[in-house]
Amino acid sequence: MSSDEYFLSLCIQEAWKYQSLTLPNPAVGAMVVDGGGNILSVCAHTKAGSAHAEVNALKNAYEKLSYQKCNLADAKEIHHYLKANHQGIFNDCTIYVTLEPCNHYGKTPPCAELIETIRPKRVVIGSSEIQKQASGGAKRLQDSGIEVVQNVLEFECNALLYPFLCLKERGHFNLFKIAQRINGDYQSGLISGMESRVFTHNQRCVADTLIISGKTLRVDRPTLDVRYCTKEYANTSPNIQILTKEKSFYDAPLFKVPCRKVDICHQIEHLKLQKGFNVIEGGWDLFESLHSFVDMVLVYISPTLKQNIKSKGFEWNAELLYIQKLGNDGLLWIKKS
Amino acid sequence: MSSDEYFLSLCIQEAWKYQSLTLPNPAVGAMVVDGGGNILSVCAHTKAGSAHAEVNALKNAYEKLSYQKCNLADAKEIHHYLKANHQGIFNDCTIYVTLEPCNHYGKTPPCAELIETIRPKRVVIGSSEIQKQASGGAKRLQDSGIEVVQNVLEFECNALLYPFLCLKERGHFNLFKIAQRINGDYQSGLISGMESRVFTHNQRCVADTLIISGKTLRVDRPTLDVRYCTKEYANTSPNIQILTKEKSFYDAPLFKVPCRKVDICHQIEHLKLQKGFNVIEGGWDLFESLHSFVDMVLVYISPTLKQNIKSKGFEWNAELLYIQKLGNDGLLWIKKS
Repeated sequence: MSSDEYFLSLCIQEAWKYQSLTLPNPAVGAMVVDGGGNILSVCAHTKAGSAHAEVNALKNAYEKLSYQKCNLADAKEIHHYLKANHQGIFNDCTIYVTLEPCNHYGKTPPCAELIETIRPKRVVIGSSEIQKQASGGAKRLQDSGIEVVQNVLEFECNALLYPFLCLKERGHFNLFKIAQRINGDYQSGLISGMESRVFTHNQRCVADTLIISGKTLRVDRPTLDVRYCTKEYANTSPNIQILTKEKSFYDAPLFKVPCRKVDICHQIEHLKLQKGFNVIEGGWDLFESLHSFVDMVLVYISPTLKQNIKSKGFEWNAELLYIQKLGNDGLLWIKKS
Repeated sequence: MSSDEYFLSLCIQEAWKYQSLTLPNPAVGAMVVDGGGNILSVCAHTKAGSAHAEVNALKNAYEKLSYQKCNLADAKEIHHYLKANHQGIFNDCTIYVTLEPCNHYGKTPPCAELIETIRPKRVVIGSSEIQKQASGGAKRLQDSGIEVVQNVLEFECNALLYPFLCLKERGHFNLFKIAQRINGDYQSGLISGMESRVFTHNQRCVADTLIISGKTLRVDRPTLDVRYCTKEYANTSPNIQILTKEKSFYDAPLFKVPCRKVDICHQIEHLKLQKGFNVIEGGWDLFESLHSFVDMVLVYISPTLKQNIKSKGFEWNAELLYIQKLGNDGLLWIKKS
């Protein structure tokens, strides 16, 4: 790997920590390195509507370089602040970013305009912007005389975009989520650690719908709320769809969560999987029924054993996009091939 | 994380690629960064008797800085070459290394002596050397006027040393290895990808003994040779111990591998697990029988499904030390808590 590739790999790792939490925006990571090679900041885009990754990274780097605290959270205000106060402080720096800086006024002002104004020495980019209205950022920076390197670790940076692209191109991102022990046991109560539960609850805040089977409802009696979510994602609990042949279970705890819609579907074909970010939580039997609708599988693995297990299986192949450690659990992000 | 921590995290990732292959030496990673912050090299110690991580990293960095090829492979020769030819080329550089540079003549000359001679600007160290006869490297460098930073990402760097420390302190490192699909199925033929098989075969070259059950011998009829190993580890196939109550299976393929000893044990207590690097390959039923002897578990997970599975389980908790992607498989390194 080249030096640029190593630096960008750190941005990729940061971005995966927020994978799917940024939807309908893509997961993006960025960093700022000074002229002496010190890493000043490594940041991710964390939530749609909040500052982009490169803006978060520039803000943190600014604080380190200027010894001044910037207490702004609003993306537009950070843009204005950095443009007004940078005083050439970034002229020696390199900015690394996994996705080409945007070049249009969307929920936030264009990152390319901000970078053009603060004038770093170099900008190293992974994936190219594929949304026409936001594209042209790299060219704009090049035209203004900043050195731009493109397509670095492009394959790995593109992998980050997959959930975003599903949602954009197909209108849905259907994620099947399962938590299990190292022998494949997903049926023995609470399996994941606290960090994983926080991530799951943050994900529920962002998801449009959560889908479970009638069996899960009956056996686990889950609440499926967002009680562990962090402040940034705080939201109402997601709507629920229950796939079941059963007719009556109206005392289950999940019905008591306020501001939530619960749908019962008696046939797979009636599941509303066509729109939005849908999280399907269940076992391998539910996966067998629904796998043709699934865009990605997220497996949490706890390094523990508890009991014997029988699991369903059938011929199914996929691509391991990314693997990460979260607390004491392993997370595998798997894309249907 | 600080800038030094980010750089050292890249060394840690490199070192894990060779975890257990360096035994009886520890897994170590190192890198050289120039004064402008360019990463010149990221290297690991790959095999006992070959050059240490920091020497590999210095050699590769030397080639980049001097535009001269150094075709040496022998550790001692690289030491001499760099000492004689460095011409102050590293004076602006920082060396990152996950373990304190050794300070004694072992299988190779002392790394601390080499670093003292070539005089980098800074040396950033993770774990401290715990072998008394090799210790004192950091102090030696400090005394010679080189800036030394110690105990950076110490927890993560110490995790790298666990197999080495087991072998050193207990006289054995017993690794239980299992390959399975995402539903926990470990019984459906060939499961792991080629990269994983190469790693497994390299590991067999380094292991003293490979232990399997009579059931594995009967059902899988494995050869347990090292046909996929890379050149660096090329070796004879490991000795085998078979744990079984059965008496006759002398036509199995593994008996035909040359230069190998095969022992049959009819009782767990007779297994020779007291000495050396032992790899136990098997299912969760074998793990249940042997878990009290196991120091670490390595789980390979292929993002595929094939068939239904029944797996054994029992109350067992552990710590996930590290997780990595190898080809299309995920690897979980788990330490008994």
